[in-house]
Formats: sequence, structure tokens, C-alpha cells
Amino acid sequence: MTEPEQQLQTESDHREISVAEFFEKNRHLLGFSNPQKAIITCIKEAVDNSLDACEEERILPEIRVTVEEDEKKRLRWQVMDNAVGIDESIIPNIFGKLLYGSKFHKLQQSRGQQGIGISAAGLYAQLTTGNPVKIYSKKKGQEDTHMFKVRIDTQKNEPVIIEDRVVDDYEFDHGTSIEMDIEGKYTGGHHSVKTYLKHTAIMNPYAKIVLNEPDGNTIEFPRVTDKLPKIPKEIKPHPHGVELGVLMRMIKNSSSRTVSSFLQNEFTRVGRTSADEIVEKADMSGKERPSTLEKSKVEDLLAAMQKTDLQNPPTNCISPIGEDLVEEGLKKELNPEFVTSVTRKPAVYRGNPFQIEVGIAYGGDIDNEGTYNVLRYANKVPLIYKKNACATTEAIRETDWSRYGLSESGERPSGPVYILVHMASVWVPFTSEGKEAIASYPAITKEMKLALQEAGRDLKRYISKKQKAQMQKKKANKLSSYSMEMVPALAKLAEHDEDEIREELIDMMKQKYEVDVRKEMEKNTE
Amino acid sequence: MTEPEQQLQTESDHREISVAEFFEKNRHLLGFSNPQKAIITCIKEAVDNSLDACEEERILPEIRVTVEEDEKKRLRWQVMDNAVGIDESIIPNIFGKLLYGSKFHKLQQSRGQQGIGISAAGLYAQLTTGNPVKIYSKKKGQEDTHMFKVRIDTQKNEPVIIEDRVVDDYEFDHGTSIEMDIEGKYTGGHHSVKTYLKHTAIMNPYAKIVLNEPDGNTIEFPRVTDKLPKIPKEIKPHPHGVELGVLMRMIKNSSSRTVSSFLQNEFTRVGRTSADEIVEKADMSGKERPSTLEKSKVEDLLAAMQKTDLQNPPTNCISPIGEDLVEEGLKKELNPEFVTSVTRKPAVYRGNPFQIEVGIAYGGDIDNEGTYNVLRYANKVPLIYKKNACATTEAIRETDWSRYGLSESGERPSGPVYILVHMASVWVPFTSEGKEAIASYPAITKEMKLALQEAGRDLKRYISKKQKAQMQKKKANKLSSYSMEMVPALAKLAEHDEDEIREELIDMMKQKYEVDVRKEMEKNTE
Repeated sequence: MTEPEQQLQTESDHREISVAEFFEKNRHLLGFSNPQKAIITCIKEAVDNSLDACEEERILPEIRVTVEEDEKKRLRWQVMDNAVGIDESIIPNIFGKLLYGSKFHKLQQSRGQQGIGISAAGLYAQLTTGNPVKIYSKKKGQEDTHMFKVRIDTQKNEPVIIEDRVVDDYEFDHGTSIEMDIEGKYTGGHHSVKTYLKHTAIMNPYAKIVLNEPDGNTIEFPRVTDKLPKIPKEIKPHPHGVELGVLMRMIKNSSSRTVSSFLQNEFTRVGRTSADEIVEKADMSGKERPSTLEKSKVEDLLAAMQKTDLQNPPTNCISPIGEDLVEEGLKKELNPEFVTSVTRKPAVYRGNPFQIEVGIAYGGDIDNEGTYNVLRYANKVPLIYKKNACATTEAIRETDWSRYGLSESGERPSGPVYILVHMASVWVPFTSEGKEAIASYPAITKEMKLALQEAGRDLKRYISKKQKAQMQKKKANKLSSYSMEMVPALAKLAEHDEDEIREELIDMMKQKYEVDVRKEMEKNTE
Repeated sequence: MTEPEQQLQTESDHREISVAEFFEKNRHLLGFSNPQKAIITCIKEAVDNSLDACEEERILPEIRVTVEEDEKKRLRWQVMDNAVGIDESIIPNIFGKLLYGSKFHKLQQSRGQQGIGISAAGLYAQLTTGNPVKIYSKKKGQEDTHMFKVRIDTQKNEPVIIEDRVVDDYEFDHGTSIEMDIEGKYTGGHHSVKTYLKHTAIMNPYAKIVLNEPDGNTIEFPRVTDKLPKIPKEIKPHPHGVELGVLMRMIKNSSSRTVSSFLQNEFTRVGRTSADEIVEKADMSGKERPSTLEKSKVEDLLAAMQKTDLQNPPTNCISPIGEDLVEEGLKKELNPEFVTSVTRKPAVYRGNPFQIEVGIAYGGDIDNEGTYNVLRYANKVPLIYKKNACATTEAIRETDWSRYGLSESGERPSGPVYILVHMASVWVPFTSEGKEAIASYPAITKEMKLALQEAGRDLKRYISKKQKAQMQKKKANKLSSYSMEMVPALAKLAEHDEDEIREELIDMMKQKYEVDVRKEMEKNTE
């Protein structure tokens, strides 16, 4: 053991790592692990933003997605929308800085929540092709379109503006268009841009989406309703969902003059009466200045908050698309013979309101390929990857589908069926930054299972009715072919006219067996 | 549609999100999804750091882990080591700032790589109990021990020093001790601190680890060798593993005066000859100033780098523990009847050198519970969670164990067996920040499978030999019980002494059947 080897770790070895550097090296965490997945992730992030922007501004979304392949086998993609554009002051940060956004701190349902997605796509673009992101923005009511080219200074996680000028061409009256060059692979199949947009169209039937594929093919996902879902409202945190560290920070940052007003101002579902109850349980007067509270008093306050009965958080912060639109969406893209849907009442996990919707589409154009098809959604965004790590799949597997008219292979239902599960929430607990699967909180899977059971019962009714109708039809077929042969013999026996006997037999069967023999006879002679 | 609803997104809505805020809200990404997992994650992060620190300084690690439970059902944990301490100048940042460290930018094997782990534990501690992290550091050769209490300003991702003073008590001659209070649940079983430390002891047999459990129980994992693995060296990036965006940044930041010297200075395995070959292929002279290169020339340079044959990266940047120590580790903690191990030669994925080691322990004290037991490691750190999402498990399942003497149930080998897989690399591609599973890069699973097959063949030989020995033993048993009954009859027939005949028979069987009847006879009469 020699001296030079024994060195202390000192400042010179250590440095801050920018979040952009971190994700550049860990890009598989964000959905950029291979070229095929990369293009889907890019389109997803841009389309999510467009749909969020349109809904916030009550605009029926029209989105044009274009993917081209160049001679070097790179992909150039563009997503153009008719939202209201983005203010020039924030364009560089939105596209050139990871962890920047407006949604992270809001308790309000939206597709984006972390401020990572679109800038991560830009990071991937510059890593793989060296090219900056190109953004066009035309604000509502303005003539000019702004064009930016932005790169990310990875070591600082800061935007660098390469170009910033006014142009005059934009296809819609207003909106934003994003363009990037990436190393990517455009494919078909289950994991593809096309499938992703199809699933998006099902859950967002008020959007018109057009996809221009690299081979020149154009696919349109039409708008089938002009009804936008209601705007979710922002809410304050609920006292039952807050943790000690967060409460301490809220108290430190609060401008309220008393603990009682702090409770009423900063939390939802706390009025004068509840505030009184809480401070009493915490053995306080409520008149204390928040900033003077000792840590042990804050702990008492938290314990009192958790012990006090309070209304559940308000649910206007979440906006499910509703049973009618779920069914519309399933019908328009799948053309099934039967469709049903269930939107559960809102529930709460760890203080966060959420709401589960499920839909089932059965038969018709749906292939009977053996196992079921699943449509997984979080805040209206399709989840394509990590199916087996997702709460939705867990809920489906833990449902006894044999009770609902489907056969099962392994733990999975099989048959010509699509099962849709949607979680709408102010904060969806994803299993990774790539937002690919929902973490299995017990409160969430429970709601999913209840919704699936309810929809399952509708399915069962339909399948039973269909089976009964098929049985009846079989019976009718038999009766019509054999019973009519008896007519001459019966006529002779009863000394009656054959036609009369036939009519009587037909009437009798109609009453007794609910079978319309005449129809069957007509069909048989066709 | 009314005017007030149509608002542009403006700067006021948008803000930067600190990485600490991000992970506070997404703490399940870092291994803090529930109280049981939280305590394991905390201990893991601290023990990893201690082992890294000791190895860097060539000190045989001695680590004391203590977990206590207080009356509020919170856990207080402490990890104390005999490394060389930490310089006071960097203590606040190490424990109070996420994404801060010395290992992220180095191509050199270490347990830590991201600069998130221990500060994330501190973030979780202050979120759940409001208490700061307590650090004791006694530097080698100094009398004083420094004691810090540090919190994280979550909104800024900056440390706040609560206390900083000199104390005079430290149990070892030098080292670091960390203490935190967390909401946690201490349990036994497969997912427990004890199991985690046991698995750590197997892969780090040169460490002595002592665990003091909340119930007062003490478990010691003893040191069984004084041989430390060699120190991995830091290397430069390899030209075949670099991407365009990174190359552009390297060129921009380079102080080299020519492209040729840039290539030789900044990359491994590029000497004068290779540099000449690369620049020629890129249609350049090599004398160009790096900073003046246009983007298209950088692309040409990258293409030329990738087309040029170069030696694989040097592998002294990785340090496997070696076949002997793998076997030592398995023996000391499992006491099997058979053990084997294989350390493969280094290989490369995406420019990153890595090396696979496997070990198999069979029989002896190992329970025959049906399915196999797995020991997964990344840079000597046990992986406890996400078994099914891990490349190690994939490799084991894709190996045909019936060829190696084990029966299979499903795709899994079964029997009294532990299978150990270790990936050592300058950069392990984890599937999440929690570093719980290794992503399945084809180059990695391929090496794992080759190693498993090699070790499997050793296992097969042992099991075959054992089976043969068992057969022989059976035969010997039969012979000793029946053949001796023939002695009197034979003696009469041959008109010989019975003892003589018996001896002859015994000799014959020893020669012909390789069976020592005398031994069996002695055993039977015991």
C-alpha cells in the first residue's frame, strides 16, 4: 500500500451533472432505446402537447403528422396543429431545457406532466443527427409566424437559439409546428406510429388526425364528434395526501398569518369548521403564526389533519371522456358488433383524485385471433409499451372473464374483443419517465377491476342474448324444414285445407316457441 | 367560445422544475415506492458508497449497519465505514444535491454512477420525517471528526447546512458514517436488508459487514479473503461507441490543434496510424483545426471512425472479482456441496467494455425448494427487485438447463441450486434510476448465456459423476448383502476355507465392479 494511492475525494473530482447530460446517457429511460421506438416516442410527445394545447383553448384539434425518410435512412418528422401557438418568450426553454413546464406543479389533469418529453425528443435529435429542433408558431389573431431553430446546451441544460425569424407561411389560421431529424426506423405493426395514432383517435374522437407516411401513403383518422371534454380545473392539495416534508415547505413558504387561515387557504376541503377541528386536535389555538411553528408542532398538525374527517377532493380537476365518447371512439375505429363502456365515479390514491373508464368492443370487424386486444390509456394518451408491467393489465388478468362470456387462456381472456382501460388523474404514477406503464397502486387496480366487472356484465348479457338468438334460429330452421312436411298428413287427418293447417301451425309456433317460421321459410326458398 | 378562455401560454405559467422536486414527486423511480423497499434502498446506497470508497483507497472494508425503530414506527439507520472519510468541502453537495458526483463522466467501473443515490435517500428522509441527514467524517491521518447535518432545498436542489462542528468520537481510525430517519418497515424474507447484505457478502468476500437489527439481533458477514480486486482504470471513449451529438460536443470543447491530434488525444485505441486511416477515409488531411469543422465534415469523420478497424477498448477499466472469489463467496454464505464459476473475457456493447461472471452453487445446505435461486449483480451490487425485467433472468431462461443436469419447470431450472450472474462495466444500462435491473442489450445477454453454458457443463459433469457414484453405491449395497450369502455354498463346492473364499470374492468385486464390498459390509454392521 503506497502513499500516492491514498487520496481523499476532493472537490476537483466532483461536479454537478446537468439533467440533460443525465438523460442523454440514460435515454432508454425516456423511450429512446432503439430507432423504432424513438420515432413513436417523438410523435407521441408532440401530439400530446398539441392535444393539450387545443383542449385548453377549447379548439377542436386538427393535427397533421408527417414522417419522411432521407437518403441516409434518417427520419424527418413534423407535427403541425391548429392550437393557439406558443409565446416566443418561452419557445427556447420549452424545446431546449429539460424539466421546464407549466404542468408539474398543477393539480390538474393533462397529458404532459413533467416538462421533459418534447425537449428530450430534441436532445435525442441532436445526439443522433446533430440537427437543431425547428419550431413554427403562429399565435391566434396575429399575422406573423415565428420560426425558431433551437439546440440544447447539454452540459448546462439551457437552450441555444440558432435562428429566430418571422416567416409568413403557416397552413392553419394559428398553431404550432415542430420538426426534427432523428435516427429512427418507421415500421408497421403493433408498435408503430400508425397504431399509436389509431389508439389516440379512439380516445380523442373530437380530434382530426392526418398521418403522411414515408411511402407517400396518407391515413386520416376523422373527427366523429364536435363535443370536447370539459376543461379540468386546477385544485389545491388535500390534507390527507400531504407528507411531512411537503407540509413543512408549505408552511415555510406560506404568506398566511395564522395556522387556521393557512389551512383554509392552502388546502382543498378545509373550511372554518374543519380548520377549527384540526387545530384543536393538534392542541393549538389556530392563531399561531405558521413560520414560528416548531417541527414537533408541524408533526402534530399533520397527525391532526390525517385524523380529521374531510370530504374527498373535488373532482372537477379530472376530465374523463365519458361513456358516450368511449363508445363512439371504439365504434369508429374498430367497427364491432357490440360495444359498452363504464365511467366510474372519481376515487383517490395518496391524495390524488383519479377516475377510471373502461370500454369493451366485441365481434364485428374484430379478428378472433385467440387472445384479447388491450387499449391502455393514461390521461387520454395511449400506452404502447411495457404492457406486462402495467396496472391495467394486472386488473384485466385478475378479472374472471369466464363469468362474462369469454373463454380464458392462461389468465388472459380470449375472443374477438378489445378491452379499453383509461386512467384520468391529476398525477398518473408512471413506472418510468418514458410514461409507458401505470404503477400498481392498490386503490387504482381496485377501481379498474370494478369497472371491468361492470362492463363485463354488459358483455355477458349481450353474448347470452346472442347465443339464445342463435339457438332460436337453429330451432326455427329445424321446425321450418320438418314441421311443414307434416302439413299434408295433418290436413288429411283433420279433414281440413292444407293452407289453413299450415297457417295454424305457423301461428302456434310463433306463440309457443317465439319462432317466426314464415321468415325462415321465405329465407329457405330464396 | 368566449374571449377570456382563449389565453396564450405565457412565461408566468412556466417555470424550471428542479431535479429534486422531480424525484420527490416520482420517488418510486428511485426505489422509494413503499416503506419496506425504502429501508433496503437507503442501506444499499450507503453500503455501495462505502465499498466504492474503500476499494478506491485499497482498504479492506469494514462496514457496520444499524437499524433502529422508534416509538412512532419510524426507522433510524446508520451505515459506518472504515474508508478515508470525505473532504468537508464536498460533504454538503454529496448529501444535499441530486445529480452531483465524481463517477458520471468517468469511464471506469464503480458501484455508483449517477450521483443520485445517497442524496435521494436524504430527500426521502426529509420528506417522510422532516429530519436532516447526519454525516460523520474522519479523514485519514487527522484527529478530528467532522459532523454535518444537511437538508436539501428541494426547490433549488441545493444543500442547506443545519449544523457543522467538530466532534471527537469515531469508532474506526478513519471513515464516514451516515445516519437518517425515515418512514420505513424492517422485515425479513427475500426482500430484506439482511438478504441484501448476504448477497453483498457473497460478491464482496473481502468485506466484513455487521448488521445490527432493530430487535437487538446481530448478524456478522465475515471477511474470508484479504485479496482486494484490482483497481479499475479510467479510460477514454472508444471511436466505435460515440454518437454524432457527442462527437460534435467533444470537437467543440477540444483544445487539440488538429483533427489528427484530437483523435489521438481524446479516444482510446487511436494512434498515429489509425488517425491517418480515419482522416483519409473522411477525405481530410488531419491538419484541420477541430473547431473549424462544418457539421457535414464531422459526420464524415464519424462515418470514417466507424468504418476503421480498431482494437477493442482496453479492459483494465473493469474489475471482475474473478472465479476464485466468486466460489469463495458462494461457499462461505451457502455451504453447497459443489460450486463452479466462469469469468468471461471482456466484451463491448455500444462502445462500453463489460465483463460477465457467473457462478453455480449446488446441493449441500441449499434447499431443494423446487425452482432455482438467482443472485444478480451489477458492478458487485446485488439486484433484488425487478427480476423478471432483467437481462440476467432472460439469459437464465434462454439456457437449456436440461442439458446441464437440472430439471426444468416452465422455462426455469429447478433443484437445489443458486445461479449467480454478475455484470461488471464502466456503464451498466439500468432499466430505471433505481438501478434495479439490467436492460437486455443483445451483446450483454449473449455473453451471459455463453458463461452460463460453460458453468453448466461443469455442473453437468459433477451431477453425472454424482449419479454414477450413487449407482455404484446401490450396486455395492446389493452385492454386499447377497453375494456374501453365497460364501458357505461356494466354500463347500470348492472345498475351501470360507474366509478365503470371502476374501477372493471381495477382491474380485473390487476389481470388476469397482466396489469396495468390505466398506459396505462394515457400514452395514455398524
